[in-house]
Amino acid sequence: MYDVAAVRSDFPILSREVNGKPLVYLDNGASAQKPQVVIDAMTRAYSHEYANVHRGLHYLSNLATDKYEAVRGTVARFLNAPSPEEIVFTTGTTEAINLVSYAWAAPRLQPGDEIVLSIMEHHANIVPWHFLRERQGVVLKWVDVDANGDLDPQAVLDAIGPRTKLVAVTHMSNVLGSVVDVAAICAGAGEKGVPVLADGSQAAVHMPVDVAAIGCDFYAITGHKLYGPSGSGAIFIRSERMAEMRPFLGGGDMIHEVSRDAVSYNTPPMRFEAGTPGIVQQIGMGVALHYMMTLGMDQIAAHERSLRDYARDRLAGLNWLNVQGNSAGKGAIFSFTLQGAAHAHDISTVLDKKGVAVRAGTHCAMPLMTHMGVGATCRASFGLYNTVQEVDVLVEALELCHELFG
Amino acid sequence: MYDVAAVRSDFPILSREVNGKPLVYLDNGASAQKPQVVIDAMTRAYSHEYANVHRGLHYLSNLATDKYEAVRGTVARFLNAPSPEEIVFTTGTTEAINLVSYAWAAPRLQPGDEIVLSIMEHHANIVPWHFLRERQGVVLKWVDVDANGDLDPQAVLDAIGPRTKLVAVTHMSNVLGSVVDVAAICAGAGEKGVPVLADGSQAAVHMPVDVAAIGCDFYAITGHKLYGPSGSGAIFIRSERMAEMRPFLGGGDMIHEVSRDAVSYNTPPMRFEAGTPGIVQQIGMGVALHYMMTLGMDQIAAHERSLRDYARDRLAGLNWLNVQGNSAGKGAIFSFTLQGAAHAHDISTVLDKKGVAVRAGTHCAMPLMTHMGVGATCRASFGLYNTVQEVDVLVEALELCHELFG
Repeated sequence: MYDVAAVRSDFPILSREVNGKPLVYLDNGASAQKPQVVIDAMTRAYSHEYANVHRGLHYLSNLATDKYEAVRGTVARFLNAPSPEEIVFTTGTTEAINLVSYAWAAPRLQPGDEIVLSIMEHHANIVPWHFLRERQGVVLKWVDVDANGDLDPQAVLDAIGPRTKLVAVTHMSNVLGSVVDVAAICAGAGEKGVPVLADGSQAAVHMPVDVAAIGCDFYAITGHKLYGPSGSGAIFIRSERMAEMRPFLGGGDMIHEVSRDAVSYNTPPMRFEAGTPGIVQQIGMGVALHYMMTLGMDQIAAHERSLRDYARDRLAGLNWLNVQGNSAGKGAIFSFTLQGAAHAHDISTVLDKKGVAVRAGTHCAMPLMTHMGVGATCRASFGLYNTVQEVDVLVEALELCHELFG
Repeated sequence: MYDVAAVRSDFPILSREVNGKPLVYLDNGASAQKPQVVIDAMTRAYSHEYANVHRGLHYLSNLATDKYEAVRGTVARFLNAPSPEEIVFTTGTTEAINLVSYAWAAPRLQPGDEIVLSIMEHHANIVPWHFLRERQGVVLKWVDVDANGDLDPQAVLDAIGPRTKLVAVTHMSNVLGSVVDVAAICAGAGEKGVPVLADGSQAAVHMPVDVAAIGCDFYAITGHKLYGPSGSGAIFIRSERMAEMRPFLGGGDMIHEVSRDAVSYNTPPMRFEAGTPGIVQQIGMGVALHYMMTLGMDQIAAHERSLRDYARDRLAGLNWLNVQGNSAGKGAIFSFTLQGAAHAHDISTVLDKKGVAVRAGTHCAMPLMTHMGVGATCRASFGLYNTVQEVDVLVEALELCHELFG
């Protein structure tokens, strides 16, 4: 039985108040809060076990290296990656997708080559490809979502042409919560010899992920959304793709030999990890992933389904509220606008007075906003510690907004 | 009066033992330990004040944003940069120099254009330039150091030719401790219209830095060596140079507008900061810089000069020890080898048994190693909390190595 009260007690920030009200933190899509075990692991690392990794031979360096490198295995287990050698540490999804863009795509794609994207990608999975359009004439092909916010895998496959070199899609929309059938896309794209990158920033937070079953070539996750520290993250890269990549960031650790006239590179995955890494935040991410796996990703997903169903029902009862996207299997992420003149920012400000933290804006997803015909929305995004009571607080606060602005 | 005992009590790890001996941490060149105020600041941020920055309008997001953005001013003050707008946050020096390489140099340099480097650069200030050599035919011109490990500024200026587009030099060698007269280099290079990048990874730890007085175009620092968290850092970029840079990492925060067919970018410095940043580690770095400034950079430098002088004398008394580099004004960083068969790794292992943490290897400076004719060395690098008594422990442990291997 999923004991949400016990879970909540693991997160110190959840007992604080904001503007004199208990904090109702519904901005998990932007970043999640951290359990005490993660905070404690970082404190312990800095207080008793800190040194640089890989480079020393002394006790503390070996200790830090062992703890840091163990996280590679934890990430592999979390994603069911075949091998820890297929995990590259990053500072988050943004760096991860830029790594793929600079190290794999940029040297391979020719002018006129195509990348297929869905219209509901986050800017982190758009701008690195726009760079390739601007700089080397790569063509971006966009696949729309339907009125519910669902992406038809077949539409993605239909967009693949002879010049398509990559499909880059989110596994779960950060705005709509829509889950993409990446496995179906990978199966079809694989038949055409086209690699698939999945942005797992949101999906990995809310559901079990199995990259082996999905069959993708790249799968990026970001630690700060996974209840881990800021600046942590990783990407699964299928070994065949990793072998095709040239180095991205240059510096220590990623080299084999450096001379005046030549440089040779370390073996993957170290080839793609330059300089002193985010030692302690990656150790913290490992603890966060372990925390989630101990709760059970299926149990977390089930809890969040119940939150989603309850929130969907309650929000549907507000006939002055427009919820963007209503995919049947969506995650517990709700984007909405109020009928009338109220700007999303005004709504979030009122919610904040009631202790409810939501995000207002374009959610780093401007092409989707344009597609949906909205300028800015509010977004309430739930996590493993949220409750149905918090849905009620949200709804009450929205009713106040309706009174004020309706 | 600099009270090193009081300083030491600020660093919890310094009271621990290693291998049954009090920790003598002399691996500061690789990474420094953290004072309690830095650890506490991170704990407080995660426990009570955490949210994503820039994107929310709710209380916690505004609070985190204020604390995070204030660090830009702290860094500017630490470096005496004219404006916080000339500070770009990075994950450390490696990312910082790659930013300059990808965003400023790569789009500007043509085949045959030259970059002038010193032979004692760290790989972080070599490999990004090797990329430009490999990928676009840029020529690297190396300037040697003399037998003492000193770099003659005039030799750097003499290496500047009509095709030179950048001088990239360390401000303090991570192996030899030699301090480079970057101001003299900047003055001469400026007359020739050649920008200068200074790698401040070591120098900023050990001496006051004034980028306005130095006159450099780029100055990179790394938080984890500055008694701050792993994964933190920043670079000063003169506004004229920043205006010449194209975006590097693509994603959220660094854009103005994104559509299917076009993208426009945020103003600097945000243009160069993509995605969710290292929020809490940058806040921690700000506290670390404040800690150092409160102690006083002049006082820290004076304390370390006394350590340097004492260590230089004591090591000079070991006639079976070869110390690489003996620059008069060097920082308290000592690279050495033992006469006889002992490998540097064996020495560091023996020192570790005595609780003394040093680094052994090539220190991410292989061209310098080749120049000095050594394969690997041990390095003892001192910090603001080290003591002359610890120098004695080091010397005793080295004498044991001499007995064992001599």
